[in-house]
Amino acid sequence: MDISIIGSGHIGAGLARAWRAKGHAVTFGARDPRDAELVALCTSIGATATTVAAAVAPARVVVFAMPYGALDDVLTASGDLAGKVVIDCTNAVERGAGLKYGHTTSSAEELQRRIPTAHVVKSFNAQGAENLAKPIYGDLAASNFYCGDDAAAKQIVRQLVEDVGFDAIDAGPLASARLIEPLMMLWMASSRAVGSRDIAFRVLRR
Amino acid sequence: MDISIIGSGHIGAGLARAWRAKGHAVTFGARDPRDAELVALCTSIGATATTVAAAVAPARVVVFAMPYGALDDVLTASGDLAGKVVIDCTNAVERGAGLKYGHTTSSAEELQRRIPTAHVVKSFNAQGAENLAKPIYGDLAASNFYCGDDAAAKQIVRQLVEDVGFDAIDAGPLASARLIEPLMMLWMASSRAVGSRDIAFRVLRR
Repeated sequence: MDISIIGSGHIGAGLARAWRAKGHAVTFGARDPRDAELVALCTSIGATATTVAAAVAPARVVVFAMPYGALDDVLTASGDLAGKVVIDCTNAVERGAGLKYGHTTSSAEELQRRIPTAHVVKSFNAQGAENLAKPIYGDLAASNFYCGDDAAAKQIVRQLVEDVGFDAIDAGPLASARLIEPLMMLWMASSRAVGSRDIAFRVLRR
Repeated sequence: MDISIIGSGHIGAGLARAWRAKGHAVTFGARDPRDAELVALCTSIGATATTVAAAVAPARVVVFAMPYGALDDVLTASGDLAGKVVIDCTNAVERGAGLKYGHTTSSAEELQRRIPTAHVVKSFNAQGAENLAKPIYGDLAASNFYCGDDAAAKQIVRQLVEDVGFDAIDAGPLASARLIEPLMMLWMASSRAVGSRDIAFRVLRR
């Protein structure tokens, strides 16, 4: 496959390396195609570099792997993208401000506002109940995330997560419920994809 | 630990079972504590059932495991929750309408609106670039989610996900980017929790 990648940072370069190893042709589209680091990368993996416009024009698959902040410039430089597959690898995260779009609160935060003197901890929302009875998959326990703003309350919940047999992952403050609450729907989507409810999320380590 | 659980459906009952097996005392708070199914459950696992108010009043830990739609009633019945640990297991999902709070769009959907004739597929946004070079953890490949609205484009991206060495998970339409985009921040939170960037998400199966 001929693939054009915009951005040659960690993700762009990492994808290029992996895809070159599979025999795909990779062209980087860059503001400066003669950038020394980019040229060295291209030489090392057998890719080519050109302008964004020249990389995009012939491509069936365009990978947006530049920083999100460069999106406007890249769209302007890209020209017509009609009919192309655009793989969006960007994260619209503003430093210290969380996700830019559509993640402005969570039901756990709304609950905390309604019971301000209680210590709300979000957990156990992100998977089918089957996993409560069988949290172990082969050698691995399913991961179960929890988050909250009160350290003592979180410690209690961590113990309760472990008592179910889960791998407990501290996802941070209660605002992280914005990250955990979508997991139930992702669990359902994954269940459909895999064709089974006997699935669980796990944070793999080496 | 003395734990009060509101709701005795799959999650509430599953948690009660797991915690009873660890020796915790479990009290269910229910609209009807004499409900036959609840009484049978209590007998079988050695838990007790009472009203929501009576279950909440003495509890240090209260688990909200009822359907989200019952939240208003439960809050009314609960009385004062000051100082209590409230574990929120609910999902504010309205049938067919997605998450009720704070997940109204995604940057991928915004991008698609800007390039309506292209086929945007969200992927490769949800983990550190280290995983592109080393996607395998022990016997397991890291999972990499993708979503989009064009079937042919998704098929291409699925192949590219697999060509990196990932376990490819089809998360559905492009609106599922609302579920995938938070994963990068959850990956970072998990990285902090685990103390390593050498981590990856995986959908475990049996």
